[in-house]
Amino acid sequence: MSAYADRLIEAVRRKDTPLCVGLDPFTDRIPALFGDAREDTSAVLKFGASIIEIAQQHAAVLKPQLGLFEQFGEMGYATARLLTEQARGAGMIVLLDAKRGDIGTTAEGYARATLGPKPGFDADCVTVNPYMGLDTLEPFLSVAERASKGVAVLVRTSNPGAGDVQDLQVGGAPVWRRVGEMLSGATQRLKGVSGWSGLMAVAGATYPEEARALREVMPDALFLVPGYGAQGASAADAVAGFVTKPKGLEGGVVSSSRAVLYPQAAQAAKNMSEWRAAIGDAMAAAAAELRAACAR
Amino acid sequence: MSAYADRLIEAVRRKDTPLCVGLDPFTDRIPALFGDAREDTSAVLKFGASIIEIAQQHAAVLKPQLGLFEQFGEMGYATARLLTEQARGAGMIVLLDAKRGDIGTTAEGYARATLGPKPGFDADCVTVNPYMGLDTLEPFLSVAERASKGVAVLVRTSNPGAGDVQDLQVGGAPVWRRVGEMLSGATQRLKGVSGWSGLMAVAGATYPEEARALREVMPDALFLVPGYGAQGASAADAVAGFVTKPKGLEGGVVSSSRAVLYPQAAQAAKNMSEWRAAIGDAMAAAAAELRAACAR
Repeated sequence: MSAYADRLIEAVRRKDTPLCVGLDPFTDRIPALFGDAREDTSAVLKFGASIIEIAQQHAAVLKPQLGLFEQFGEMGYATARLLTEQARGAGMIVLLDAKRGDIGTTAEGYARATLGPKPGFDADCVTVNPYMGLDTLEPFLSVAERASKGVAVLVRTSNPGAGDVQDLQVGGAPVWRRVGEMLSGATQRLKGVSGWSGLMAVAGATYPEEARALREVMPDALFLVPGYGAQGASAADAVAGFVTKPKGLEGGVVSSSRAVLYPQAAQAAKNMSEWRAAIGDAMAAAAAELRAACAR
Repeated sequence: MSAYADRLIEAVRRKDTPLCVGLDPFTDRIPALFGDAREDTSAVLKFGASIIEIAQQHAAVLKPQLGLFEQFGEMGYATARLLTEQARGAGMIVLLDAKRGDIGTTAEGYARATLGPKPGFDADCVTVNPYMGLDTLEPFLSVAERASKGVAVLVRTSNPGAGDVQDLQVGGAPVWRRVGEMLSGATQRLKGVSGWSGLMAVAGATYPEEARALREVMPDALFLVPGYGAQGASAADAVAGFVTKPKGLEGGVVSSSRAVLYPQAAQAAKNMSEWRAAIGDAMAAAAAELRAACAR
């Protein structure tokens, strides 16, 4: 199989948009059309399945947010796995947003659980936390190398408190920059023939200046950019860390969740066909907005 | 209900040992007596259930390592939840080692999943990663405050690469020390009448000097000390961050996994009664060794 980075960048080029649909099941926002998600995980499964059917037309990548599935216990966990299977079967690339990180054998367990085949998720890529050190990333990198998968490391996140630890100054540079520098060996290991690496960096859209600075440190890493849409960043901010290529900007994917899952028109839909149309419109708009931001 | 910190310290005093049994299911070490753990999660469930029956006699606290359950998919996840229920039913305090961490609503999802009632784990405490900032800990703290639970934050971990990020120097002090300082507000919020706080700090036994230094920064935090036993730290190292009280040292729990789950005598056991005796001996020895280390 091709390297994950090559598969990802090729799929993004084919869709001509870096849009990544974030799959965040909020119990109180999933429309009653699917059943009551507060009572029944089958409503979450039906909602997710319908989202994927529409998303596959507009985006190359799906990002299930595992924490929002885990709130439903093991049934939620199983639901996330089934939806991962559906999306991959439909040709989407699945980036599992699990933010795992642990030592030695436990990290191996998480790597198997997220990137490994059944009973694992068999996701294409997983988000991991670097706080515990490079040795804790190794089990993920090693599975990724063997199975043509990717690893997305939290470097500079998009939340208001992101700077508490990430911006601490170490010899004149913030911690997040040191983390980026530390990842250069791992980045080389997951490099594809496209020149891009499957060692992705999570770089929040709410901090475009920092995404640009991080790009200097990590020239080959594909970026996973959260925070576009509901978290307030513009499409231009979201692609700030991308690089100029003959066909425009490229260098990662940009995730949108709430704006494409729960747009007002979909929340007001009276039947499934109105709901489908509203979701399709929201995804098409996000895909187009990001396409335009890259075409310069 | 009493504050988590009070329940924990009282339970440790009653058992007269800070031993915390780490529940780490390794597929290739679970004895064939329980079935083949590589094929069937019911072997993991039976093994875990038997471990808890013995552990409740020797230790106040159980620490299931969620990553090693997740490698079995949703059935593993469910197994960890059932074992948590069993251990709490038997009066043990369950510290779920999940090392979660995410932003806003996703962190709320993880907080519900780990500390919340069914379909959550309803664990007494959960381990969390501080890299994403204080706002990402808030949902856990808020559930902990409401439900008399605890939150154990990774500060200085026990693995070889722990220093990659945690030891970066920020104005003359390492990142882990800054993280400890940042947690003082949270520590106050989870303080019990015992004077101890349910905001626990994960402080690796393999770095006793650092546990002592961290104690100065976090005088009221209970420590969760991993790395004792198989990871090479001595009992004296493990309690290095504890403080002197009239009855000896106290201030947290010390986790042992491999040494009490897979001692040689248990691996060689020919039947269940030999296995039970071997596990009981290993746990009694660990409990006694830590008791002795505290009695000074």
